[in-house]
Amino acid sequence: MSQYTEYLENYGKRAKKAAAELAVLPVQIKNNILRTAADMLVSNSAEIIAANNLDLENAKTNGMSVSMQDRLRLTEARLEGMADGLLKLVALKDPVGNVIGGHTCENGLQIIKKTVPLGVLGIIFEARPNVTADAAGLSIKSGNACILRGGKEAINSNLAVAKIFSQALEANGVSPDCVQLIDNTSREVATELMQMNKYVDVLIPRGGRGLIESVVKNSTVPVIQTGTGNCHIYVDEDADLKMALDVIINAKTQRPSVCNAVETVLISSVIADIFIPAMARELIERNTQLRVCKETMSAIKASGCENIDMSYVIEAQDADWDTEYNDYILALKIVNDVDEAISHINEHGTRHSEAIITENFTTAVKFQELVDASCVYVNASTRFTDGFEFGLGAEIGISNQKLHARGPMGLCELTTYKYIINGKGQIRK
Amino acid sequence: MSQYTEYLENYGKRAKKAAAELAVLPVQIKNNILRTAADMLVSNSAEIIAANNLDLENAKTNGMSVSMQDRLRLTEARLEGMADGLLKLVALKDPVGNVIGGHTCENGLQIIKKTVPLGVLGIIFEARPNVTADAAGLSIKSGNACILRGGKEAINSNLAVAKIFSQALEANGVSPDCVQLIDNTSREVATELMQMNKYVDVLIPRGGRGLIESVVKNSTVPVIQTGTGNCHIYVDEDADLKMALDVIINAKTQRPSVCNAVETVLISSVIADIFIPAMARELIERNTQLRVCKETMSAIKASGCENIDMSYVIEAQDADWDTEYNDYILALKIVNDVDEAISHINEHGTRHSEAIITENFTTAVKFQELVDASCVYVNASTRFTDGFEFGLGAEIGISNQKLHARGPMGLCELTTYKYIINGKGQIRK
Repeated sequence: MSQYTEYLENYGKRAKKAAAELAVLPVQIKNNILRTAADMLVSNSAEIIAANNLDLENAKTNGMSVSMQDRLRLTEARLEGMADGLLKLVALKDPVGNVIGGHTCENGLQIIKKTVPLGVLGIIFEARPNVTADAAGLSIKSGNACILRGGKEAINSNLAVAKIFSQALEANGVSPDCVQLIDNTSREVATELMQMNKYVDVLIPRGGRGLIESVVKNSTVPVIQTGTGNCHIYVDEDADLKMALDVIINAKTQRPSVCNAVETVLISSVIADIFIPAMARELIERNTQLRVCKETMSAIKASGCENIDMSYVIEAQDADWDTEYNDYILALKIVNDVDEAISHINEHGTRHSEAIITENFTTAVKFQELVDASCVYVNASTRFTDGFEFGLGAEIGISNQKLHARGPMGLCELTTYKYIINGKGQIRK
Repeated sequence: MSQYTEYLENYGKRAKKAAAELAVLPVQIKNNILRTAADMLVSNSAEIIAANNLDLENAKTNGMSVSMQDRLRLTEARLEGMADGLLKLVALKDPVGNVIGGHTCENGLQIIKKTVPLGVLGIIFEARPNVTADAAGLSIKSGNACILRGGKEAINSNLAVAKIFSQALEANGVSPDCVQLIDNTSREVATELMQMNKYVDVLIPRGGRGLIESVVKNSTVPVIQTGTGNCHIYVDEDADLKMALDVIINAKTQRPSVCNAVETVLISSVIADIFIPAMARELIERNTQLRVCKETMSAIKASGCENIDMSYVIEAQDADWDTEYNDYILALKIVNDVDEAISHINEHGTRHSEAIITENFTTAVKFQELVDASCVYVNASTRFTDGFEFGLGAEIGISNQKLHARGPMGLCELTTYKYIINGKGQIRK
């Protein structure tokens, strides 16, 4: 209990009530809400952009970095992108009400296992206002009410976007409380939300490691951990080295800021001398700093460093093996064999996406069996771990915990199930 | 970090290593371990019973209630029952390594979704030593290493049973660390286990509400909440009243100590006057105390109380609607209609098992759609919510949370999945 308990319970009670309505809403109406919201994001763009400008002015006053300001900025094009995301959800199959099992018992009881929404989602996110539309859309389509708590940097933008959803819900005769945004962005309110077990069924934090760790530590509501990706690629002695180089360049430099980008490359000692100098050259050409183990440093130096700008090569510290850079930085380490690679990954990885490059069947199978991660690749870039690439059609995040959903989470992963049991008066003997 | 960190990390590290071995163990060997353990539980019964006697002596000295002493006691027959439970697991299908999805992407990437063990289970339980064998058996068959932490009252019995599993694992050439029992039963150690995220993948508390609440509050490791069941039966105005009476008597009195027993009966006001006096008579005859709302009290009194021992009938307090009695006590409340019944259940229930007795199709469907619980029955006793009754073949508990598994949890619910992705050098455009 705190000064915020009543304030938050008010959100909770309304969400719970709205969730009951949304849980049994025909998909036609859910789709109509999404269509209305998509239209309104575009037709109300002036109003939303004006709210966003308030946030941007505050950001400048508070000295927010230019790249963070860019994440915060909403434009006509970005609003159209958000609207387009909602229309893509319309095209997806309803994840609710699907019969996923069932049988008739010996005593005649008929059991049906059926997908149902989770109920009320608490979604805690940082400074990107597009998450508001994204999370609200996924919640509506999956039949869940949501309580959104965004960062204070984007509060005006978030309120403007959330208002669109309230209006779109009302326009379709559905409770506007299906999507609520908390207007108090204090840390205390966020912490209390994490403990509102009576009203919130599941918490999904979307943001950096700090946010996720805080939610895991403080929450008593069940959490789905998403996002942190300390991903590895192991280049085996039997690798096609041309393929290895292409995959590493892609996984590191195509979009380094995302969770499925590679952070550490492990190299078999057998091919280290031939492979490492070539790889170093290509990555440094792409502006990537290398943090290397002692053996890797020796291998680079022994190669004569031809065309290698050594200012990009620094010695790795222990902490590098556990760091998700999300940047043009790559850690490199030589290992003896696939076993050492697997041990390193299971010790330092975040159970997200891990890859091996090899032509050896038995080595490939061993790696896939023994590496503990949601997605284990042979001969492909870790960058494919994504709801759209996996054919889920949408994504709320990438889970790297083992309970409930693992890997990319789409609409189905926002549902649970319920047993419907029909009898004729059966009693237990 | 505490004085126990190193002590517990020792369990954690060994469990993690053993889990990697167990995760890929062929089912033949897992079954052999279970068979060996079953044999040894019986052939070493004298040693186990001697250890149990130490616990029973301490229990007497400490004034443990006779019924609790009975729960703690191991006999030849109970050890045979535990062995039999392990042999039943042998007969079940391996839940690991099943392909549950997959497709080939447009770019040729081949995605396979495959069941894998959760990893390391932390199982915290109270004074029943049979849980040690039960939990160890389920863990082994599902490919999970487990760290067991039982109550101090049963420590000697638990250690003796856990030793059987170590020996059975070793006899089959598998690490004995697949099953470890923590020998320090202090509360501090339990709390630290709940926060050992690096080594424990999932926590499953098995016990009373106090234990479960403590785990939910203190744990940073993902938890599966099991067990608390404040179950309701609503007798609709269109009920077959003979059926309603039979089902209520069964759900309350066949085994009142379990979580799927009914705790509150809601009665439509339309049939209250005819139904309540008859029900009261039958339940009181079976020694059941009734805690009744004011309207129920009036209905009983208006009936003339013929053959009703009114010392069994007391007025309900607000707390009664939230109480899981696990005893010969039943709360009774008159409601206006199915809507009020649904509201009451969603407000006071624990999302476990809820039933309606009705002949009306539309009312039945409404109840099943709108009641938020893992198992929603029409015209049957709530007592059927059980892994064996549901055909899962075994049960680690009944989940009443919405993440991961809901309702009875068998072997499959002790697994997660992993995506295996095979490519030919694909990179992300």
